[in-house]
Amino acid sequence: MSITVVGSIAFDTVETPYGVRERMLGGAATHFALAASFFDHVRIVGPVGDDFGDAELDVLAIRGSSIDDVERVPGGKTFFWKGKYGWDLNTRETLDTQLNVFEHFEPKMSQLSCAADVLFLANIQPGLQLDVRRQCTFAKFVALDSMNLWIDIARDQLLEVIAQVDCLMLNDEELRQLTGKPNLLSAAREVLTLGPRIVVAKQGEYGSSLVTEDEFFALPAYPLETVVDPTGAGDTFAGGFVGYIARHLDQPLSSDVLRNAMAYGTALASFNVEGFGTDCVRDLTATAVTERVDDLWRFAHFEHVVIELAS
Amino acid sequence: MSITVVGSIAFDTVETPYGVRERMLGGAATHFALAASFFDHVRIVGPVGDDFGDAELDVLAIRGSSIDDVERVPGGKTFFWKGKYGWDLNTRETLDTQLNVFEHFEPKMSQLSCAADVLFLANIQPGLQLDVRRQCTFAKFVALDSMNLWIDIARDQLLEVIAQVDCLMLNDEELRQLTGKPNLLSAAREVLTLGPRIVVAKQGEYGSSLVTEDEFFALPAYPLETVVDPTGAGDTFAGGFVGYIARHLDQPLSSDVLRNAMAYGTALASFNVEGFGTDCVRDLTATAVTERVDDLWRFAHFEHVVIELAS
Repeated sequence: MSITVVGSIAFDTVETPYGVRERMLGGAATHFALAASFFDHVRIVGPVGDDFGDAELDVLAIRGSSIDDVERVPGGKTFFWKGKYGWDLNTRETLDTQLNVFEHFEPKMSQLSCAADVLFLANIQPGLQLDVRRQCTFAKFVALDSMNLWIDIARDQLLEVIAQVDCLMLNDEELRQLTGKPNLLSAAREVLTLGPRIVVAKQGEYGSSLVTEDEFFALPAYPLETVVDPTGAGDTFAGGFVGYIARHLDQPLSSDVLRNAMAYGTALASFNVEGFGTDCVRDLTATAVTERVDDLWRFAHFEHVVIELAS
Repeated sequence: MSITVVGSIAFDTVETPYGVRERMLGGAATHFALAASFFDHVRIVGPVGDDFGDAELDVLAIRGSSIDDVERVPGGKTFFWKGKYGWDLNTRETLDTQLNVFEHFEPKMSQLSCAADVLFLANIQPGLQLDVRRQCTFAKFVALDSMNLWIDIARDQLLEVIAQVDCLMLNDEELRQLTGKPNLLSAAREVLTLGPRIVVAKQGEYGSSLVTEDEFFALPAYPLETVVDPTGAGDTFAGGFVGYIARHLDQPLSSDVLRNAMAYGTALASFNVEGFGTDCVRDLTATAVTERVDDLWRFAHFEHVVIELAS
């Protein structure tokens, strides 16, 4: 199987209670690829500028990912984001956004990118997502992320592309905003009537929930005493989730596969937030990932010991 | 075993997106007792006024709870709270609080109340909690709830009583406020150095987490499409949690017992929020509770299917 991800490659300047880091490698496609590359061959589609160096390309290419479709825009500058997190790292403020090469980005899909079995449409303008979706005619599994901005200003296009994906991954607030339903379960079930057969609600420090027609599954975030930089946690989660699924597409998607996909996504996201930018997931070992999934089993597991209750 | 709960008995007027209900039976001790009475004999200690009728007392006495220590204050009026919930039921605004008989409340502990094996100190002034704690010399398990107000204005007394309980149950924000630690796990571990051996973080629609020296356990809330009135959910959870533990005090507290206690608390809280006030937990059957714990197992369970990852 092969996985294509289309999305942003960025430089991020991030301020958290643990310090400030300038112009780190970031972006949704970057974080997704670093996680998904543990599972399968990943092709990254996204634009960078002249300021994007070989050192950054080397990180993108980790674990065999293809950077052939990383588009270098001559004379352009790489997408830049600057943000600051609050003391509990649950709120963040955007201080600066420079779209740069992203402003006029039109994904250039090579034949190999289009031929992917699995496609992740990271958060970009829904019209572009739709365009990419249509080109990937062989994709057996497509997941999509978006954000409040597109729900606001490009709702119709967003609904059009949502109708053509298998899995929608949004945070709670975005699911509520998209559907107008304040209740998360109702919102997720509403999305299931729009096309996708899987909805994943990303819930930050609380973990994530999965809703399909037949089931509900929720997993806590991996408990950490030190969260250094949450930037990219959602995309890293998506990389683990989609990656695990990519390895099981020779069979119908079972409950076991979906739940393990959630666990691998959760484990990978936990490493992402322990360091700035790509620091931790870049250097991660397979064994460390597997161990955290084992931990998650212990953190979430109970055996029902039934007792007699009064009536 | 027997369980004593000391706390508020109230009339609540609540406005939610599902409507307004005037002067319903409420209060922390009420919600706790209705849940805990499924597990063991409960004694309720708290004050009411002349406006508190036999119909309300009958509800308190459900499933054999003792109302002998419900103190009728002649000429007094029952504690009254009025609040309004936002559209997603995650935020609430207090519109009116009338302390009434609660203003000069001093718990009158009968010999039987003091002799309880298990004590729940619902959210009241920490000085009163301390007084009650000292009188219950035989208690094998004591749990305590509090709130932001007491952390603000009675911190020393609160820390004094926290030092003398087995389990502290607070919501995330309160744990952060109490310890000054923005990270929830750090906050919970800090509390473990203050006296308690168990910390339960109540996380509303996200569920709850349990932290002890040896373990971490988190359980999602029971997924519901219709949440009618969240008032009392935390105390209902506490009733199920403490109740399940009360039934297992003949042995050291095992991980199994604590995790099932979390699950029973979660199941009971889910019924509480499905109706206004005490409507749902009052009329609940033991079978319905057990079934929801089974459901929770399915919602939270996965078996780790290990796959080979790239390195």
